[in-house]
Amino acid sequence: MQLKFMKAGIISIGDELLIGQTVNTNTAWLGQELGKFGISVFKSTTIRDVKEDILQTVDAYLNETDFIIVTGGLGPTNDDITKETLTEYFGTSLVLNQQVLDRVTDFFQKRGKEMLDSNIQQAMLPKDALILDNNHGTASGMWFEKNGKVLVSLPGVPYEMEALIQEEVLPRIKATFGVRGNYYQTLMLQGIGESFLAEKIEDWEKRIYRDGLHLAYLPSTGLIKLRLTSEKGTKEAGLVNTYFDELRNGFPQYAYGMNEETIFEAVGELLKSKNATLGTVESCTGGGIASSFIAKSGSSAFFQGGLITYSNVLKNKLAHVSISTLEKYGAVSEEVAKEMAIGGKEVLSADYVIAVTGIAGPEGGSEEKPVGTVWIAIATPDGVFAEHFLFGEHRGRNIEKTELYAANFLRKKILEIED
Amino acid sequence: MQLKFMKAGIISIGDELLIGQTVNTNTAWLGQELGKFGISVFKSTTIRDVKEDILQTVDAYLNETDFIIVTGGLGPTNDDITKETLTEYFGTSLVLNQQVLDRVTDFFQKRGKEMLDSNIQQAMLPKDALILDNNHGTASGMWFEKNGKVLVSLPGVPYEMEALIQEEVLPRIKATFGVRGNYYQTLMLQGIGESFLAEKIEDWEKRIYRDGLHLAYLPSTGLIKLRLTSEKGTKEAGLVNTYFDELRNGFPQYAYGMNEETIFEAVGELLKSKNATLGTVESCTGGGIASSFIAKSGSSAFFQGGLITYSNVLKNKLAHVSISTLEKYGAVSEEVAKEMAIGGKEVLSADYVIAVTGIAGPEGGSEEKPVGTVWIAIATPDGVFAEHFLFGEHRGRNIEKTELYAANFLRKKILEIED
Repeated sequence: MQLKFMKAGIISIGDELLIGQTVNTNTAWLGQELGKFGISVFKSTTIRDVKEDILQTVDAYLNETDFIIVTGGLGPTNDDITKETLTEYFGTSLVLNQQVLDRVTDFFQKRGKEMLDSNIQQAMLPKDALILDNNHGTASGMWFEKNGKVLVSLPGVPYEMEALIQEEVLPRIKATFGVRGNYYQTLMLQGIGESFLAEKIEDWEKRIYRDGLHLAYLPSTGLIKLRLTSEKGTKEAGLVNTYFDELRNGFPQYAYGMNEETIFEAVGELLKSKNATLGTVESCTGGGIASSFIAKSGSSAFFQGGLITYSNVLKNKLAHVSISTLEKYGAVSEEVAKEMAIGGKEVLSADYVIAVTGIAGPEGGSEEKPVGTVWIAIATPDGVFAEHFLFGEHRGRNIEKTELYAANFLRKKILEIED
Repeated sequence: MQLKFMKAGIISIGDELLIGQTVNTNTAWLGQELGKFGISVFKSTTIRDVKEDILQTVDAYLNETDFIIVTGGLGPTNDDITKETLTEYFGTSLVLNQQVLDRVTDFFQKRGKEMLDSNIQQAMLPKDALILDNNHGTASGMWFEKNGKVLVSLPGVPYEMEALIQEEVLPRIKATFGVRGNYYQTLMLQGIGESFLAEKIEDWEKRIYRDGLHLAYLPSTGLIKLRLTSEKGTKEAGLVNTYFDELRNGFPQYAYGMNEETIFEAVGELLKSKNATLGTVESCTGGGIASSFIAKSGSSAFFQGGLITYSNVLKNKLAHVSISTLEKYGAVSEEVAKEMAIGGKEVLSADYVIAVTGIAGPEGGSEEKPVGTVWIAIATPDGVFAEHFLFGEHRGRNIEKTELYAANFLRKKILEIED
């Protein structure tokens, strides 16, 4: 079967999605992952934990699509009925799966927790389904087949679902349907807006389309992912990479990495490659920059630690910002940001220090320093450098942008890239 | 028509939702808003900008539901075909709406942008539909009626859609169907798993069902939200609150707040109410605890700052953990956690200090101290207390759980709650 013509459908099961307690992020994630394989999701439906609704929707999807992913409704509580309902629909029955029971038992022993009947019930699985091991939870995935069509049932918890897709489902799809798969790469950019980038690469975009490649803009706060796809598979890897090299060389101030790498991972690798160390002195981000750098394991190789100088007292006491500078220029100023970086460099004995001070909002703005005003300073072996930013009104996004712009500012200093 | 029996459906139109470029947040928002009116969304479907798919889905929904909200596909570009398709489906025709044309023209003049033919086309609207003014964009909303059922078509841009729902759609629904809303509250719990909670409150659950209330478990990493709903509206507010008081009193160690409040917000309010200050000394969470506390504005009223002592050198230099303690017990130990908290209390001059040290993984585990081992210490005006935790294998979740358990540990100490 030519997979590029394969129609996939997604069924999300759970009252919480329809009453709006939970935003359904699984559908978008699945759309992206399946898209990489050349499988297009043509429809997605969210339904309640109601037997009739599940039966009716599954039946309709098996008529309309070739491959169906069902997420949710596999928990141990009574309101979860997906497993029982699918078992009935596919005319099979639940039997104890010893291997799964052992894994679930082990799962609880490792955590020193007692196991409940409801957990043991999770080892009762459909006889005629292929059971997919869930190493991150107690609900197994199930692979059903009917008239050459495949329905996969997975837990709705994103990290459990994602691991099962990557480790169990996609490899089997590849094997079952002989997928060639598209070849794609994603270029990560920080520090430029979607429409501005679109304008700068208009001509480049025309050329990639002429060469039959597909481009997707995947913007998020402070970042853009550009995904370039060839339907001809790896034989066009060279072409895709040449086009991205062109952007990397043309826009080194924005293009920091590839394929889901975070700006913090990219800077971390850069520091490791130089055997250089990093410290942070944070005010408005309150530790968010440091926590972003340690999100990836191995960060202890370069990250020393940091100071969270939220109060002015601690800006002086911990980072040795002089009282007079604080009084004269105010906590959110170039001078204070620089003194924070210099003070941090000596206290944390790191080669590089990031210091940030700003008004995240919504309170605290003024005529002269509105909400969104941020000063970022970087202390390097060569000196200290500061930059002024004016972000928006939204506290959360102001904090997130400060973290991203600070990391990219450091990256540009290490690589000596001018804007 | 009794609105409590009214079934609503949501149809989201747009390729970008299915290829995963955009996460569909409209469905969750609509589910919450309609739920407040006692309108339950029983199904939601996302489809491509394809005529046949739109016709087929709209037709199915008009058979299955009483009230349908369609979002997306109303832009000026060629790929947007929702308006033309619905106009055809409802057997009417597009006519120029002078009022809308004037508004769109004005919209562009205000922004000093030239108007394109495609924008003028947006003033061509179905003759037999009620036109809903969009004051935030150029795409109007459309209210169609057929056999006593209502279908509303709205733009997909969240803030345009939300304004149209609040200003145009909900008032008309109220008038048309005479709505009485559901009453619901959400109880927030930390420190217990879904299945364990379900077992503890089995009997309580039986009673709330007997009283005709609805319960939803909404678990996420380290947290559970319990949502209790009455279809009889605010007249059962007392009943709902009495049932939750019972859980709050029965499980004060887990039940920390209501309605989407985070554990960090709850602890922050608690500290403010006592005019007490907080500091943090973080190793494995690398600043994540502090950044969670400052996520809400107003945190400067209690949060002083923190130390991120990622390296042992800094545990000693910044938090004054003695070298001998580090050598004798290792960085991840009760003794080091306690010395971090004590040192932090004096350096940060805060009333309460949270200190955490652990092995987030995936590297760094040992037989004696496996990945997921965490020590949390709390320094209070009365002394210092430490607790041992063993979480899982996943670095990100180990960090997240450490943050949540640390906040709740502090909360229990402030309120003198025993486990």
